[in-house]
Amino acid sequence: MIKVGILGASGFTGAELMRILAGHPEVELAFTTANQYAGTPVADLYPNLTGIVDLEFLNYEPSLADGVDIVFAGLPHGSSMEFVPKLVTHDVKVVDLSGDFRFTDAEVYETWYDAPHTASGLLGRAVYGLTELYRDKIAESSFVANPGCYPTGALLALAPLIKLGVIEPTTIIIDALSGATGAGRTPKPETLYCAIDENLTAYKVGGRHQHTPEMEMVLSDMAGADLVVSFTPHLVPVGRAILTTAYADLPGHMETGDLIEKVSRFYNDERFVKVLPEGKMPQTKAVAGSNNCHLGYAVDARAGRVVAVSAIDNLVKGAAGQAVQNMNVMFGIDEAAGLTAIGLYP
Amino acid sequence: MIKVGILGASGFTGAELMRILAGHPEVELAFTTANQYAGTPVADLYPNLTGIVDLEFLNYEPSLADGVDIVFAGLPHGSSMEFVPKLVTHDVKVVDLSGDFRFTDAEVYETWYDAPHTASGLLGRAVYGLTELYRDKIAESSFVANPGCYPTGALLALAPLIKLGVIEPTTIIIDALSGATGAGRTPKPETLYCAIDENLTAYKVGGRHQHTPEMEMVLSDMAGADLVVSFTPHLVPVGRAILTTAYADLPGHMETGDLIEKVSRFYNDERFVKVLPEGKMPQTKAVAGSNNCHLGYAVDARAGRVVAVSAIDNLVKGAAGQAVQNMNVMFGIDEAAGLTAIGLYP
Amino acid sequence: MIKVGILGASGFTGAELMRILAGHPEVELAFTTANQYAGTPVADLYPNLTGIVDLEFLNYEPSLADGVDIVFAGLPHGSSMEFVPKLVTHDVKVVDLSGDFRFTDAEVYETWYDAPHTASGLLGRAVYGLTELYRDKIAESSFVANPGCYPTGALLALAPLIKLGVIEPTTIIIDALSGATGAGRTPKPETLYCAIDENLTAYKVGGRHQHTPEMEMVLSDMAGADLVVSFTPHLVPVGRAILTTAYADLPGHMETGDLIEKVSRFYNDERFVKVLPEGKMPQTKAVAGSNNCHLGYAVDARAGRVVAVSAIDNLVKGAAGQAVQNMNVMFGIDEAAGLTAIGLYP
Amino acid sequence: MIKVGILGASGFTGAELMRILAGHPEVELAFTTANQYAGTPVADLYPNLTGIVDLEFLNYEPSLADGVDIVFAGLPHGSSMEFVPKLVTHDVKVVDLSGDFRFTDAEVYETWYDAPHTASGLLGRAVYGLTELYRDKIAESSFVANPGCYPTGALLALAPLIKLGVIEPTTIIIDALSGATGAGRTPKPETLYCAIDENLTAYKVGGRHQHTPEMEMVLSDMAGADLVVSFTPHLVPVGRAILTTAYADLPGHMETGDLIEKVSRFYNDERFVKVLPEGKMPQTKAVAGSNNCHLGYAVDARAGRVVAVSAIDNLVKGAAGQAVQNMNVMFGIDEAAGLTAIGLYP
Repeated sequence: MIKVGILGASGFTGAELMRILAGHPEVELAFTTANQYAGTPVADLYPNLTGIVDLEFLNYEPSLADGVDIVFAGLPHGSSMEFVPKLVTHDVKVVDLSGDFRFTDAEVYETWYDAPHTASGLLGRAVYGLTELYRDKIAESSFVANPGCYPTGALLALAPLIKLGVIEPTTIIIDALSGATGAGRTPKPETLYCAIDENLTAYKVGGRHQHTPEMEMVLSDMAGADLVVSFTPHLVPVGRAILTTAYADLPGHMETGDLIEKVSRFYNDERFVKVLPEGKMPQTKAVAGSNNCHLGYAVDARAGRVVAVSAIDNLVKGAAGQAVQNMNVMFGIDEAAGLTAIGLYP
Repeated sequence: MIKVGILGASGFTGAELMRILAGHPEVELAFTTANQYAGTPVADLYPNLTGIVDLEFLNYEPSLADGVDIVFAGLPHGSSMEFVPKLVTHDVKVVDLSGDFRFTDAEVYETWYDAPHTASGLLGRAVYGLTELYRDKIAESSFVANPGCYPTGALLALAPLIKLGVIEPTTIIIDALSGATGAGRTPKPETLYCAIDENLTAYKVGGRHQHTPEMEMVLSDMAGADLVVSFTPHLVPVGRAILTTAYADLPGHMETGDLIEKVSRFYNDERFVKVLPEGKMPQTKAVAGSNNCHLGYAVDARAGRVVAVSAIDNLVKGAAGQAVQNMNVMFGIDEAAGLTAIGLYP
Repeated sequence: MIKVGILGASGFTGAELMRILAGHPEVELAFTTANQYAGTPVADLYPNLTGIVDLEFLNYEPSLADGVDIVFAGLPHGSSMEFVPKLVTHDVKVVDLSGDFRFTDAEVYETWYDAPHTASGLLGRAVYGLTELYRDKIAESSFVANPGCYPTGALLALAPLIKLGVIEPTTIIIDALSGATGAGRTPKPETLYCAIDENLTAYKVGGRHQHTPEMEMVLSDMAGADLVVSFTPHLVPVGRAILTTAYADLPGHMETGDLIEKVSRFYNDERFVKVLPEGKMPQTKAVAGSNNCHLGYAVDARAGRVVAVSAIDNLVKGAAGQAVQNMNVMFGIDEAAGLTAIGLYP
Repeated sequence: MIKVGILGASGFTGAELMRILAGHPEVELAFTTANQYAGTPVADLYPNLTGIVDLEFLNYEPSLADGVDIVFAGLPHGSSMEFVPKLVTHDVKVVDLSGDFRFTDAEVYETWYDAPHTASGLLGRAVYGLTELYRDKIAESSFVANPGCYPTGALLALAPLIKLGVIEPTTIIIDALSGATGAGRTPKPETLYCAIDENLTAYKVGGRHQHTPEMEMVLSDMAGADLVVSFTPHLVPVGRAILTTAYADLPGHMETGDLIEKVSRFYNDERFVKVLPEGKMPQTKAVAGSNNCHLGYAVDARAGRVVAVSAIDNLVKGAAGQAVQNMNVMFGIDEAAGLTAIGLYP
């Protein structure tokens, strides 16, 4: 059994890690920390875990990591860089779900997260954990920076298009819709039920979201040249979901069917990525609660563009599920272990 | 492997059976019928099953049942009584999810379902499949009438109170809230998104819902004497959920804590029933997608009543999950096989 | 023009007062206070008022009340008793929307609100503002205690049944569903979108909600004798709505049609109360955004009970709308002035 | 009083016309037709109109138009072209809310609506009713083709940018989110509550939505040259709302503040269009139930694009409200008569 600890388990990502790991056949959940809730039973915050996870949240102490095989850090960005360095030097694998170790360049982080990076010495040590694109490196790593939720959805849709050379990489526009779990558990007036219910809104409009450089980093890697994207996130009244609609110019004419065939071949051996047939488009409810990503494509011949659409559950493939997928790869076990749940539809 | 067939698989209950059985370690899904959609891939209607259930809906033919071990009938009431009799005489186990075989008396059926019963010879042959109350009979049966969704929620909350003698059985009022999946997949103006979103309503008010006699049948069995209940169902804007709030007079004074302790002991060995501690009340999202039932109780000392609250996912514990639980009992395998999913919260 | 001030205008009730009063033909909105947001434009918190209410929230100062004709206090309970006494002695009419002045007996308040009453000298000075029941007193008063949202829905359904002598007053059970606007704007983990979306729950179960004695006070007044009710509130995923389902024993047999006719006659001249014909039941969306209350009734002959159902918008008829209705009565103008909005359906 | 008739009043658009016109100070509602529901009281389908619109749906007969001043046609496309020609030749003004008379060229209609146009002789007779852009022509016309919901939101955001010369007209991408009321009242599996709740999806992807040429027609008119747009509609779980996010390349550098100032000036005298200050973005709930359109803009300097966002209630400014606004203009009365409702927020 793999012994697992979770830092920052009171947030939605941490709770989702508990939910997934409680059903993982090769995992033993050793501890979960949440300083703010130290001493509180996990089920008091997450009633779905009643009678299933019989742990209390603990105060973080370095000694907790002794004897565990892997630690997931579900801490907010800025906080991970405080706790993760001690673990990385320790003999324990780490999957960090914050934005703190995704970049190699401290300046990028500092510009987009508007805060100093206090552990820049570790930058470049972590492998970027988009499993389908970087599986081999992840398998050899003991420190994975798990991708952001928006980049996961956008990159799975766009990376093959760049790799396959079917789009102009400099023309990418990414428009994405997120459910409210993406906004986290800390109460704010704008994340109240009454602020989100029956409401649609765009935020950080004009290229200001911190996930933008993360998308650019990977897409530039795919393209072999630096590129810039336009990214606009929206908050919509669902719990778990990211639907991404991305646009890019086509260098020449292409049939939708041919494009889908190419992408299908690209993802041929993947367990969690399903490329839908021509005429079908992803629905986020089809992947809710699962680690699956559904992809759909359509060529707009009049406008000379391709439209790529992806659907994920932001807490699963967009966070905790992909983190567990990475753990499975890091430990060389079945990549789908603990991740076989089917989307809850309807 | 248990070979399984599903009749009427295009409805929500049938789809949920597919979803659960696709993840059941000891089941092979042999066929699914839906005459209206014969030839259509299952994933066209239920995109969550894309790449997971690679079957097409079939037209029903009696020969389909040859060689399968058990058939689930997810047909509408009135339709089950047409198809199930042929199966029951066949050498195949049957779990019927309609209301057609839950009563022993054709007159009760005909009164409440306002339709003739054309297979009354089979009445009394089926065991009523509320697993926690009738497990021993189910284990010996090859024909189970799976309970209605509302009765499942109400009976799990109330049966112990009657059995334990803590309430006046003739004073029961049951007020329940159901999500829209309970209204089925057949399109009607009143089940459109626009009719249910941001709307709350009661229906079949005044003791007119067909689940009323089903509740009365079991509660009378528990009480050892005939009783009548008031039952009012409500339709509320959620997908999967039944929250039941039931009221009954207390014959004398009782502390909430004592009552909870008694009920906890009653359900002590149950895998899917969780009695919450004093001061906690069930939330339906804590059981969404799971076969769990959460129960909460509070004594209203001023009014001399107890209030009992239960939460289930109507498609799982209220239908397909309980059906699989019954199958597991009928085949003598682990009762939780295929049913270990944890509620999707948040 | 009636000059109006609002205390505590940053909460949902205060915002709804602004929305309604901005469309009132005989009102001029003089000031709105919200100490926490002093200096912030109203439209920053309530974007629907952009270009419509061009005020900033102010810090409360007693001099604000100089020259205004009426002040609405949308403060939380406990806070009203601090500010309202100064106004009442001032030459200004007051409608207080908190629970602070609804009772005549400080002990009732202190028991149910679990806090001392620091202005008990004023108790009994305010008229209880359920307009349809106490219109004449309201017309003569300059100080109205506006009813709670749950009592408004429950009392409009039940008061006529007691007044008309058709039910046993001691057998009343009230089961009510509220939308999330009822929980207010102060952010808490349990009022986040993620906590309420797709979730159903009961709270303060066992006769513990502070609106219970308010219902009992008025129903006892109608009955001419003290009575106790069982009241269970639920939180469900809608924004604005209260659906109340109430149960009471019938002393003898009664036809649903006869009962509806009696209640229709009781409310014959009312502008905002609609008694639905037999076979129809209220839907909250039919009254959303309006000051209307829809009522439906059905006799459950087998159980010897009547089921009464009412629907209101908790922010309008359950709070700000009824407050304006009371203002109209107090000033002797058209009772429907500013309150002619029709429910937003679908 | 203006005597008004409504054709096709059982759909959501027709119902919204009834709701708005019932509160219009200068309108008398003469008749409403809905052949499918002839003889049914309006309030049976739209319970919000209980006690407010005491009409029954009628079978259409040409004589109904005798003596009325204006007829609104809320018929589905294909059906309007059957009934409207008789009215247009009659001495009665007409506002048609279908797509049948928005184009001047029958071929455009036939290509995008995939159906023959059987009244092509009338094409070009109707004025396109986007009030803010074509007010003068509307004032002189007796036949208005009311805009589609998506074009209304997109054009109000983009038309000024083209008119003011701040964007490259050939680079426009329009990504829009619609609530379910846009899908109409006819029951289909994909518009059930269970299909839309907690689900996000794109549809008619790849430039296939019939509102595309309508947007192109008006934007080309603004640009003085033909242009093509990419348009992707999405269905999201809200009732009433369209949020449009549009992208276009900037020919040179521009500050967000300057751009907003220019657009504000463009809409300076408009009653229903509010341009939000820099840093604010539209929320659809802020305009729900109102005829308002909120606009927000942000320059993405890194990508050299502007992002324009608009919010409308699809049933009001996107359909019935704008139709009434056009009627007001056609009759020379106050343009805001009957349209003063403020957005229902929260």
